[in-house]
Amino acid sequence: MSRFLADRFQSLDAYTPGEQPTDMKYIKLNTNESPFSPSPAVLRAISEERVRELRLYSDPTCTLLRQRIAEQFGFEKENIFVSNGSDDILNFSFMAFCDGNRCGVAFPEISYGFYKVYAELYGVDAKMIPLAEDFSVRAEDYLDVGRTVVIANPNAPTGIALSVEEIERIVASNTDHVVLIDEAYVDFGGESCVELTRKYPNLLVVRTFSKSYSLAGARLGFAIGSSELIADLEKIKYSTNPYNINRLSMLAGAAAMEENDYYMANCRVIEQNRAYLTDALCALGFEVLPSKANFIFARSDKIGGEALYLELKRRGILVRHFTNEKIKEYNRITIGTMEEMQILVQTIEAILKENER
Amino acid sequence: MSRFLADRFQSLDAYTPGEQPTDMKYIKLNTNESPFSPSPAVLRAISEERVRELRLYSDPTCTLLRQRIAEQFGFEKENIFVSNGSDDILNFSFMAFCDGNRCGVAFPEISYGFYKVYAELYGVDAKMIPLAEDFSVRAEDYLDVGRTVVIANPNAPTGIALSVEEIERIVASNTDHVVLIDEAYVDFGGESCVELTRKYPNLLVVRTFSKSYSLAGARLGFAIGSSELIADLEKIKYSTNPYNINRLSMLAGAAAMEENDYYMANCRVIEQNRAYLTDALCALGFEVLPSKANFIFARSDKIGGEALYLELKRRGILVRHFTNEKIKEYNRITIGTMEEMQILVQTIEAILKENER
Repeated sequence: MSRFLADRFQSLDAYTPGEQPTDMKYIKLNTNESPFSPSPAVLRAISEERVRELRLYSDPTCTLLRQRIAEQFGFEKENIFVSNGSDDILNFSFMAFCDGNRCGVAFPEISYGFYKVYAELYGVDAKMIPLAEDFSVRAEDYLDVGRTVVIANPNAPTGIALSVEEIERIVASNTDHVVLIDEAYVDFGGESCVELTRKYPNLLVVRTFSKSYSLAGARLGFAIGSSELIADLEKIKYSTNPYNINRLSMLAGAAAMEENDYYMANCRVIEQNRAYLTDALCALGFEVLPSKANFIFARSDKIGGEALYLELKRRGILVRHFTNEKIKEYNRITIGTMEEMQILVQTIEAILKENER
Repeated sequence: MSRFLADRFQSLDAYTPGEQPTDMKYIKLNTNESPFSPSPAVLRAISEERVRELRLYSDPTCTLLRQRIAEQFGFEKENIFVSNGSDDILNFSFMAFCDGNRCGVAFPEISYGFYKVYAELYGVDAKMIPLAEDFSVRAEDYLDVGRTVVIANPNAPTGIALSVEEIERIVASNTDHVVLIDEAYVDFGGESCVELTRKYPNLLVVRTFSKSYSLAGARLGFAIGSSELIADLEKIKYSTNPYNINRLSMLAGAAAMEENDYYMANCRVIEQNRAYLTDALCALGFEVLPSKANFIFARSDKIGGEALYLELKRRGILVRHFTNEKIKEYNRITIGTMEEMQILVQTIEAILKENER
């Protein structure tokens, strides 16, 4: 840290991304990436001719990509905001809609770790609401809360989802504040609330191409909401980094929207593999939370969360372990291919056997 | 605008990017892009296999790219920050180093229009220092200024450069504040002050791949400075959007660094074409400021700035016109290929002739 850094950032705790070790080849089940390649149209879209065009700026209005997303979801392009990953949209939203002197923000105590970082970064008063005993988000806790509300649905790292009816109760009771629903993981069996944005101008739904659309490395996120909320996000984008999506990612995203069926079929495979892994781990005595995401959150009485994480890593499998006291006995495990799931189960079985001795 | 937007952003004037009309095919001389394709190594680097890998997150530490830049400039990777375009780095720097309660910022009154936007966005008190009569930045005006200093060198939209000696005077007299030198255009004949970062821990030099490296559409910028300043920027990045560079742009940037000679040769061609255009416009009675950038800033007594801009646009040539009172008789014209420069000169000649009648 330099002596020039503004005082308010000096004690800021930045986000810690999932580790990316390069000492050996791992089975990566730690950052919720898709095991499937981007679709054929994406591979075709990034041609040598398009790479040559990198000499030109990208379109700051992102018209083609927004149009394609709008068509896919049945909205107008004025209801669609696209940005450099959904983190970028969360960042803009904390900046735009949670201003410290105005209202503050409320989100679940156990959720995506970045919400807390954004609140700290912008000096926003954050009310972190505990989960229920069973790790679910209780809709009642978010009714008429007098703050901007941010909820990941399905929640991370638990994978547990709220129903659209529960989301609607929250949105309808907070009409004077933005309710941001982060649907990064919704395509794996959750219920999307995008349709509610037609009725509620305070609802902003944030999505990503990183999980179900196999484009984590392209950095693309989008939001759906009233044209007024979208205009606010555009204003922040045009005041920070107007060209924040590069040409190739923009093409990749537009191409992916053309082959939605390919991606939704992949999501069904992930759900099958999730069911397999859940059953197999339960058979080994694990407790597995009921997940609607492309990961599960699981613990065992036979081995501690950190010990299992370390034993798996030693054997070439990365999962995500969090040190937070309330969830430290769990690991978040990304759903990969069936082969990866089988290797994982065999490896855990072997670790548990060794542990018994 | 929604009623949810934080009060402090409601009157914010966002940046206006150069227009990108699609009604016809234009000769684009309005956004300072390179007329040259990215180099062969860049075209090779973005292979189908790499596109398949878009399913995986990019490396948030950007190790390969930072290593390559460090080698090119003779620094350690700890002295290199990379981000999603140099705008992104300017944004982070205004956030990190100009905090309102701390010191405020000083920059030339006529310069890159985004500096003013960032100051407004973060509520930073901005001292905008007028240029000299001849449109140059006077180093004396920035000595011991008691604020963070931001100077584009060469300056935009004038193209006029300060010498390294003048920059050093400014940096040495402001040791208690960061001096940010924005060298977006330095490769076209300016003198870089990157070497001064070894001596002055308060100097941050910001560069871009958008101009001399033919990668405007990849969105890549970098900064060189003391490891402490770089660590501050990393902290802001990890608190907003850690994966802010996509996989393909990261590969493109690393490949470009391997073929520096290709790009520097292109810069020499731009300088030749700039000399041609400058001479030709002077012969037509234009006043052309002495540019060290890949654009010139020019005015004529025979036609107003806006009129020339509109006449050129009607004939399929885009240049950049600013409405600011002090520079409204000028146009900023990007240096393109010799063929484009010849067409431009002929077109201007025709416009002037028509105007005489």
